[in-house]
Amino acid sequence: MKAALFATAVFMAPCITLADPLPSWGTSQSKDRIVAFVDAVTDPDNPDYVTPSDRIAVFDNDGTLWAEQPVYFQLTFAMDRLAELAAANPSILTSPTLEAAAKGELQTIAEGGHEALIEVLNASHSGISVEEFQASVTKWLDTARHPDTGLPYDQMTYQPMVELLRYLRDEGFRTYIVSGGGLHFMRVFAEDAYGVPPEQVLGTYTGTTYETADGTPTIIKAPGIAFVDDKEGKPINIERTLGRRPILAGGNSDGDFAMLEWTTAGHGPRLGILIHHTDAEREWAYDRESPIGKLVDGLNKGPDMGWVIVDMAQDWNRIYTGSE
Amino acid sequence: MKAALFATAVFMAPCITLADPLPSWGTSQSKDRIVAFVDAVTDPDNPDYVTPSDRIAVFDNDGTLWAEQPVYFQLTFAMDRLAELAAANPSILTSPTLEAAAKGELQTIAEGGHEALIEVLNASHSGISVEEFQASVTKWLDTARHPDTGLPYDQMTYQPMVELLRYLRDEGFRTYIVSGGGLHFMRVFAEDAYGVPPEQVLGTYTGTTYETADGTPTIIKAPGIAFVDDKEGKPINIERTLGRRPILAGGNSDGDFAMLEWTTAGHGPRLGILIHHTDAEREWAYDRESPIGKLVDGLNKGPDMGWVIVDMAQDWNRIYTGSE
Ligand SMILES: [Ca+2]
Ligand SMILES: [Ca+2]
Repeated sequence: MKAALFATAVFMAPCITLADPLPSWGTSQSKDRIVAFVDAVTDPDNPDYVTPSDRIAVFDNDGTLWAEQPVYFQLTFAMDRLAELAAANPSILTSPTLEAAAKGELQTIAEGGHEALIEVLNASHSGISVEEFQASVTKWLDTARHPDTGLPYDQMTYQPMVELLRYLRDEGFRTYIVSGGGLHFMRVFAEDAYGVPPEQVLGTYTGTTYETADGTPTIIKAPGIAFVDDKEGKPINIERTLGRRPILAGGNSDGDFAMLEWTTAGHGPRLGILIHHTDAEREWAYDRESPIGKLVDGLNKGPDMGWVIVDMAQDWNRIYTGSE
Repeated sequence: MKAALFATAVFMAPCITLADPLPSWGTSQSKDRIVAFVDAVTDPDNPDYVTPSDRIAVFDNDGTLWAEQPVYFQLTFAMDRLAELAAANPSILTSPTLEAAAKGELQTIAEGGHEALIEVLNASHSGISVEEFQASVTKWLDTARHPDTGLPYDQMTYQPMVELLRYLRDEGFRTYIVSGGGLHFMRVFAEDAYGVPPEQVLGTYTGTTYETADGTPTIIKAPGIAFVDDKEGKPINIERTLGRRPILAGGNSDGDFAMLEWTTAGHGPRLGILIHHTDAEREWAYDRESPIGKLVDGLNKGPDMGWVIVDMAQDWNRIYTGSE
């Protein structure tokens, strides 16, 4: 019996590696380095072998796993939600900022800076249960369309990154999202879009309260931001939530610098990946001067730190999951 | 080939269920109800079947998975560490509270209340990297012994609960610790003692900072408590970290009431378990009047809410993992 089982294993093993796990990545140094890294850490005979429990890969979301132009998609959701709430009850627009937001006047919000942003977030993201909030995100994803591509927002995920996440999981990694985006917002689509379950999504969060007033315990989103999952907040959040240092980190902006720095400074094999938005034809081209996804430190220091700088225009055969 | 494999499966399947997965639990209603619950949620033909991804079980630690008398073990660690630090550098004992703590004068700390506790925690738990802190916990566990039992503290885990955790995992559950104890403290022993990996340990935490001053990125424990994982904090922390409501929760004090309430109020099959400390012979007997592990609401309301109240003296054949 054992001999028969062994024979099966020997026959089947070669088949498993035949298909390219990253078909949307063109032949490139980026792809070669990623595959070489994964091969090394998963080969028990390689000195760089890493046990599965430590195969943790973390990825930023906006600009890394899905697009982020012309504005973070979550801000579009916030404004759309404000407009919808105001249609039913115009009195909620208690300030010129909120009135502008409900009309989709991005320029006004941008000029209002952090204070305006918090005002819009509070009015659109708090005072309701997590369940109600997430139902409103689901509905928005079903109906809203991106102004330039006409795609549902959750189909503007990057097909090469979706493949990378799947490939890593197939090789025994656990894949996490660690993003400046809202925790409760991202959890709505992360499992369907990326195969990342809710407990592997880390993000910025509002406070919550536990209420039993009506006899049913409910968790309610409170106003204000309790934790910003950006810059140093990323390694801090990972350490607090996982208690492990990842061996692979991917991002696209200087908000990811500390996460990649901490990841790749660990002992043993490590990989940092930066997505460089170079494709003005198929997506957007932006880096050092962009108000969204600004990338300066990563371009200046990343190559010397051994990070893979992915050139979207050169390295990717395909961009969005939702368009062939 | 397939027929041979199938024959093996049929031959071997019956063997798997023969051994009692909970040998340290005596015959009791508590054990019967726990096993019946697990059987139901893992049987695809049962209307109460729950898919593995939603089989989340959460457990308090102090008084639920290990003992907590005469004081929380982490407080003993804090005082022992202060004494050790002061032996090398007496000037760190900058107040009568800290002097008393380094001498192990529990009464003084107790009388100083929350403020004294924070002072002791700050002096013993902050200003060092997470790695250094955890190394000091490892060393303490190797050397310190409980004053009454003479056991290492991490052998004063409850054998019946260690078996329950393993049983649940064998049945496709993921087991989490959600405790008022310190996150960084518990992660040192949770994997060896309970089989719970660091990313499945939730607890109270100090703030941390990300420092790169010496060129090496390090996460440093800051003074003060950033989040108290007790009472309403428990469901809040679970929702924030997991994004799922557990189907099973275990605790021993009113600090666990909200966690059990939220867990068992969910749709579908749910189980709440309270460990009632009734065994003055083999452990300690305490509940309504105890300053540590006070249990009033759980005893008053738990039975009507369908929670299993475990009678330690009656239901457990054996108490500590470290003593037969
Ligand atoms: Ca980004
Ligand atoms: Ca407890």
